Amino acid sequence: MASVYRTEDCQFTVDRDALIRRLGEALHGDNLLVDDEAMRPYECDGLSGYRQMPQVVAIPETVEEVRQVLRICSEMNIPVVARGSGTSLSAGALPHPQGVLLSLARFNRILEVDHERRIATLQPGVRNLAISEAAAPYGLYYAPDPSSQIACSIGGNVAENAGGVHCLKYGLTVHNVLEVTMITMDGELVTIGSEALDSPGFDLLAAITGSEGMLGVIVEIKVKLLPNPPTKDVLLAAFKDVETAGNAVAGIIAAGIIPGGLEMMDGPAIQAAEDFVHAGYPTEAAAILICELDGSADDVEAQREHVCRLLEEFGSEDIRVAQNDDEKARFWAGRKAAFPAVGRISPDYYCIDGTIPRRQLAYVLQEMQKLSDDYGLRVVNVFHAGDGNLHPLVLYDGNVPGEFERTEELGGKILELCIAVGGTVTGEHGVGMEKINQMCVQFQTPDLDQFRALKNAFDPQGLLNPGKAIPTLNRCAEFGAMHVHHGELPHPDIPRF
Amino acid sequence: MASVYRTEDCQFTVDRDALIRRLGEALHGDNLLVDDEAMRPYECDGLSGYRQMPQVVAIPETVEEVRQVLRICSEMNIPVVARGSGTSLSAGALPHPQGVLLSLARFNRILEVDHERRIATLQPGVRNLAISEAAAPYGLYYAPDPSSQIACSIGGNVAENAGGVHCLKYGLTVHNVLEVTMITMDGELVTIGSEALDSPGFDLLAAITGSEGMLGVIVEIKVKLLPNPPTKDVLLAAFKDVETAGNAVAGIIAAGIIPGGLEMMDGPAIQAAEDFVHAGYPTEAAAILICELDGSADDVEAQREHVCRLLEEFGSEDIRVAQNDDEKARFWAGRKAAFPAVGRISPDYYCIDGTIPRRQLAYVLQEMQKLSDDYGLRVVNVFHAGDGNLHPLVLYDGNVPGEFERTEELGGKILELCIAVGGTVTGEHGVGMEKINQMCVQFQTPDLDQFRALKNAFDPQGLLNPGKAIPTLNRCAEFGAMHVHHGELPHPDIPRF
Repeated sequence: MASVYRTEDCQFTVDRDALIRRLGEALHGDNLLVDDEAMRPYECDGLSGYRQMPQVVAIPETVEEVRQVLRICSEMNIPVVARGSGTSLSAGALPHPQGVLLSLARFNRILEVDHERRIATLQPGVRNLAISEAAAPYGLYYAPDPSSQIACSIGGNVAENAGGVHCLKYGLTVHNVLEVTMITMDGELVTIGSEALDSPGFDLLAAITGSEGMLGVIVEIKVKLLPNPPTKDVLLAAFKDVETAGNAVAGIIAAGIIPGGLEMMDGPAIQAAEDFVHAGYPTEAAAILICELDGSADDVEAQREHVCRLLEEFGSEDIRVAQNDDEKARFWAGRKAAFPAVGRISPDYYCIDGTIPRRQLAYVLQEMQKLSDDYGLRVVNVFHAGDGNLHPLVLYDGNVPGEFERTEELGGKILELCIAVGGTVTGEHGVGMEKINQMCVQFQTPDLDQFRALKNAFDPQGLLNPGKAIPTLNRCAEFGAMHVHHGELPHPDIPRF
Repeated sequence: MASVYRTEDCQFTVDRDALIRRLGEALHGDNLLVDDEAMRPYECDGLSGYRQMPQVVAIPETVEEVRQVLRICSEMNIPVVARGSGTSLSAGALPHPQGVLLSLARFNRILEVDHERRIATLQPGVRNLAISEAAAPYGLYYAPDPSSQIACSIGGNVAENAGGVHCLKYGLTVHNVLEVTMITMDGELVTIGSEALDSPGFDLLAAITGSEGMLGVIVEIKVKLLPNPPTKDVLLAAFKDVETAGNAVAGIIAAGIIPGGLEMMDGPAIQAAEDFVHAGYPTEAAAILICELDGSADDVEAQREHVCRLLEEFGSEDIRVAQNDDEKARFWAGRKAAFPAVGRISPDYYCIDGTIPRRQLAYVLQEMQKLSDDYGLRVVNVFHAGDGNLHPLVLYDGNVPGEFERTEELGGKILELCIAVGGTVTGEHGVGMEKINQMCVQFQTPDLDQFRALKNAFDPQGLLNPGKAIPTLNRCAEFGAMHVHHGELPHPDIPRF
């Protein structure tokens, strides 16, 4: 089990009986869970290597109940961790041992779909896919599509700034949210953003999006809806090494083409996917690109010709254009099944999420291979290549003592490699508990001070999701010392771009 | 002359001799102006009704000099107002009477145009148009195009979140900036944002963009470059009343079409423009729409047909499609010359900037006419109709005693009308000094508290551009009292959307 909260994150004094009594008065019916058995499903989120039971689980039904929970916790100085569907892959919804786990699961209503303004108004517990389903009768959809979209909630999407396969062209959650209404730790209802392009005063919507539950608890969200593209084409191109595949990605973007999706898989990922879903992938290839082009029929045709020409110029000897909907679905099937496919060839796998400049792709893959050799752990690579978002999957066996810990350490090294080449430690999963040490590598002290000042401006008591996302000075000092112990800062001699 | 700073904004103690001595040591050559004559050009910005001399004008040449100026002012507790090209229309760069006016004019280098990554790296004093000029050899351009783009600086654009005719489709400055490096009031260099889509930690880039010089002084900016659209079409449609023109705008957007530009002019604006530039506008029309469609040739053709059909359905009896580049330029000429054209028919004019939901256009125009009658001041209307951004021009004569003050008051009423229908007090000009009272109407106390907390997190001494953008409690109390004196809150019975 990974070490999670630090002692300094757990300096709260909890009178559990009093907490239960006061929350019980504020919440009605079965909206408060206090028994271990009932709370067990909340002990972890999608990163199940990290587990922690909370003091209680509150499942409010109304905005007023949320406000009451926050006011009580503020008065009693008790931490609060908000949770949507619990699909976070960075342990963003991991409970605090001294805190209340606040589930927004009952805020699951779509309040309005306005097809003229192309805006959906949502409660935070609405599932991502349900938005597009509700918009479908109007020919509209909600663009960000995390792979957990059947289950994950829009509130969690906002908290973690979720992405998906199509965010290269259509943006992350932050680019698709118009307005967020949230309750601050002292119980004030604040609305941030609007339907207008400009914000009077400070534009805090982006700061709230991806703030990982540290600034407030979201109770209502307005998102943009987009018209379904009339046409989609899907291409598959095979490469004999990952470097040329990486160069082709950079070449497509440099040519001014922004595909709807531009994904890359390396040899082991291709093999695992092919064995699982029989998509017809070229298993002899060292890398494949899957490229989706969307828009008007003429546009897509022109782009397809251009992309095919580029892929050829960049050295692909096997370029396939899906001829019908079945084939389009098959080209995607392998990519979409890549994670479960990897699950078939290894007892466990750990999905890393980092971002690098596209041009560093080849170098990073080569360095990752070295790290994989050093740690004796296999790494399978699946990328949102177009936006440089890596998802290396580290294969391990949780039943072998110490292997999860080594996997975690390797994951950390991969993130530090991303930073070293000018990238970042998050692509779309957030920092949460998982990547908090790497935040010490990503940022200098003045940057972290600025983050802490912002946190303090919203939550001066430090009660919202403490111990996550923004590391303390002590943590960084300790983690930094660890670095010194291991030698120099990682990769001082990497080529800067 | 408008009253500007309040007494409470001017509680600093300045030892001017010591300030001049210390800044003189930090800046070399002629980088410090202290004589009235030399400082006179800095006494106002584009909103020349507001004037104020600073204590001194500093014109640093290096990042280190900017840092020194800020450190000295921090130590001496002296306000600092940063200025780009001084084209703000909301008095955002109005000097503080007890402060240093910090000009970034010498930071005028384009540091890099990377056409492969489609990113330009800029010093803040670079002129907006110079970016597109530098990108032109690569078929790229920078999208936001405020009407002052020949003169205005990218640093000022970021500070005010500037827009332009094309921001309906391509966004405001906030949607086109990737990274900002700034110096905080205590002299720390902080880089916010990155080329990656997601931000680890809090995403503060949007909060910095449009923060009106209140959080830090920007010293470097990275912006996105876009490929020039292959084709552009320009349409002009005349309407016999503004209401149907407004409905046509809403109809085009609701049909899923986002034109490159969608502008509206009312009868008086049409007449003034036609008299000035002889664009061939239908002077008998009550309103015209100018619609630019851009993209691939086929896309543009399909959209043109769709838009023409919609315009007809919504009641336009005169729809013209520009047949060649000359005619396209002519259709735009009247719109682009609208402000100077109005300058020909009135000794002075005052340009208001507010945003409303598109569907409220007709109601707002009707209410503005009433206000215009009440105040006995003519109002000419030019809009970025597609995004609901109004630019009413109030005609007045600055030589008639009290007329500027009445104009200002009418401007305030128009902004309050925007708020009342669910809009905001800024479209693209910022709040600055001009609209600070209306911020008290736009926001509730908890929202303003949140803004102040953010300001305090970045600038605890309150030295960066004090008295602008975020009103004090006292100001709001006083302005609120004024409202009560006048009666109820404005327009309690307007139709809510």
